[in-house]
Amino acid sequence: MASGAQWHLVRSQGVTAPAGFRAAGLAAGIKVSGRADLALVFNEGPDHGAAGVFTTNKIKAAPVLWSQQVLSTGHLRAVVLNSGGANACTGSPGFVDAHQTAEEVAAALSNWGTETGAVEVAVCSTGLIGDRLPMDKLLPGVREIVHELAGGISGGTDAAHAIMTTDTVPKQAALHHKDKWNVGGMAKGAGMLAPALATMLCVLTTDAVATAEQLDAALRKATRMTFDRLDVDGATSTNDTVLLLASGASEVAPTQDELDAAVLAMCDDLADQLMADAEGVTKRVRVTVGGAASEAEALVAARTVARDSLVKTALFGSDPNWGRVLAAVGIAPVMLDPERIAVSFNGSPVCIDGAGAPGARDVDLSGMDIHLEIDLAVGTSAASIRTTDLSHAYVEENSAYSS
Amino acid sequence: MASGAQWHLVRSQGVTAPAGFRAAGLAAGIKVSGRADLALVFNEGPDHGAAGVFTTNKIKAAPVLWSQQVLSTGHLRAVVLNSGGANACTGSPGFVDAHQTAEEVAAALSNWGTETGAVEVAVCSTGLIGDRLPMDKLLPGVREIVHELAGGISGGTDAAHAIMTTDTVPKQAALHHKDKWNVGGMAKGAGMLAPALATMLCVLTTDAVATAEQLDAALRKATRMTFDRLDVDGATSTNDTVLLLASGASEVAPTQDELDAAVLAMCDDLADQLMADAEGVTKRVRVTVGGAASEAEALVAARTVARDSLVKTALFGSDPNWGRVLAAVGIAPVMLDPERIAVSFNGSPVCIDGAGAPGARDVDLSGMDIHLEIDLAVGTSAASIRTTDLSHAYVEENSAYSS
Repeated sequence: MASGAQWHLVRSQGVTAPAGFRAAGLAAGIKVSGRADLALVFNEGPDHGAAGVFTTNKIKAAPVLWSQQVLSTGHLRAVVLNSGGANACTGSPGFVDAHQTAEEVAAALSNWGTETGAVEVAVCSTGLIGDRLPMDKLLPGVREIVHELAGGISGGTDAAHAIMTTDTVPKQAALHHKDKWNVGGMAKGAGMLAPALATMLCVLTTDAVATAEQLDAALRKATRMTFDRLDVDGATSTNDTVLLLASGASEVAPTQDELDAAVLAMCDDLADQLMADAEGVTKRVRVTVGGAASEAEALVAARTVARDSLVKTALFGSDPNWGRVLAAVGIAPVMLDPERIAVSFNGSPVCIDGAGAPGARDVDLSGMDIHLEIDLAVGTSAASIRTTDLSHAYVEENSAYSS
Repeated sequence: MASGAQWHLVRSQGVTAPAGFRAAGLAAGIKVSGRADLALVFNEGPDHGAAGVFTTNKIKAAPVLWSQQVLSTGHLRAVVLNSGGANACTGSPGFVDAHQTAEEVAAALSNWGTETGAVEVAVCSTGLIGDRLPMDKLLPGVREIVHELAGGISGGTDAAHAIMTTDTVPKQAALHHKDKWNVGGMAKGAGMLAPALATMLCVLTTDAVATAEQLDAALRKATRMTFDRLDVDGATSTNDTVLLLASGASEVAPTQDELDAAVLAMCDDLADQLMADAEGVTKRVRVTVGGAASEAEALVAARTVARDSLVKTALFGSDPNWGRVLAAVGIAPVMLDPERIAVSFNGSPVCIDGAGAPGARDVDLSGMDIHLEIDLAVGTSAASIRTTDLSHAYVEENSAYSS
């Protein structure tokens, strides 16, 4: 939990911490387990600026295609999210389902007293790829959920619970700026985690006064440094979506730098929460590559090591097997000096000038947090990737059932 | 076990099946287990043409650096191979060890009656990265092994056993051409298997009459289509080496096409054996991508799917989870048509035009062999990758000890 001099960050609140936002979560019957599976985040205004980043996967889910369209206006009143089904690879009938869900939300909000159009409603879905959503359950749920909308702690927390799939805990946070404006956020994402612009589903809210362009700039900078640098299993979902909504209700207009810093801090904290609850995680791992020719090369090298199954299984076994780290980084398409490359685990050098350091086999990696640092010895740029180990639990969770 | 009209392939013999070759394997004490760990393949001639392909990893083991140098002559009399230590990331002392091993082989062969120089001896090592080899055990082993050299079945089989690490069975084959010339081969490789020119260690022999240039051409063509298209875990070893030695002892000079076809058939069979004995394998998987814009794009797409942890764990669970296949191929940097893409498992369509096919969730994948076919629907090129599932045994084998 990070706090800057300018702000205070807590995890007991989420998307409804900023003024002007209400949210809710309930069980609509989409999940056969009967758990909460439908969430709604509603921006009461006075402003309705919004920005979004989406998966770079060429196979995009229907709700992503819908939300990308409606986001082109830079304006949103609500986000409806469901777990229990991804509505991905469902063809044009799936797109009709996403559209109809937005229409139903707009109609329910209009009946409730806020005139809303479907183009003001983003849709997010998560769950198994390839099946149609049970619209006979989803649509009645939408009509019900507008009556549950609440501000304060409860609405946001209910919504954070309702978007969970294989997550074991809800992920949310709120950032209170000393100048009386706030940022809230919630996220879900436990597997298929190598967001290539965003992670599975994430909704951020703020009561700052900001234009859609300012929100977009802040969101792109923040996701590039946080969700884009989280890589649990190299898999990029068809549904990845991060949305940022601003109500302006605080009547405070931060500078772009202040907004950037706050959104970055929020994304950074949620990325930490996603890593800590990734499928099968037993180690929280940060791979930092330094001495690179460029930041892009540092990032590619760190990602290559973070995705290497032999490195990840060694870390699961608390084995300081630095030879596998060198073998992994050696196949990254980056410049490195084989005779000067260095590696350390949690600050203990294990490889110096391309060969083993004294005591390298005895480094204790039994703790849950591992910082793996690699110096390519050809430049001055650096970058980090958050990842996890590859455990029996990961294999079990991903082989035992369709998810 | 493949057989063409022109030849007959058996797995009961290996590198000593062709005339003019002797081999041996013994336990020199490099492995603490006391198992066989030293092998020698000796070409009696009359010819000594040779070709080799090596790892593309930027971190190359000392024996790879040595063997690349000596191969520049296109001429080899012997290959000495050890398991129990990779002699990788060992700095210049490791290179001196590789050189000294070649000198010792040359001296022992010279004493034995065949005048040999160290530049005529290739060196291959496999095992843990990062430790020096126990030269006090390896060098006496080299002096001993020249006395054990034998032709026929026994020498080659002993050598194939001595290069095993986590392999559970030795891999060898012999191809007898109807025109009275032969090709033999042995290989090892159970983990770190995504050879980027070759697999871990492989020695091929032939009694055909062929120049070094002919051997090189045949070997490059064959490895490109076989070992280069085997990808168990995306990891490319620091030690990958494939060598082809020709004795000319059959006095038959095949055409380049005949030589190419025979070397390809041998590499194809050894690649099959490597896949079948990969670490933790419970499924033998072939991923074929068709309808691609080019063969290169088909290969990239097939490799991306073959490396995807979520696809591999689903296959371990016999789960026809085609949504994960689409999510995986969607992040490959290739052209595809999301609305026309198709997927099948063992010939049963599971996805047609980007959406689920009837009965897709009921396809039976409980058998050991799975053929996953993907049609990108943008062109006419195709390529295949051999891979395996991601099982508990893979995690166990790679986390429980340093290897």
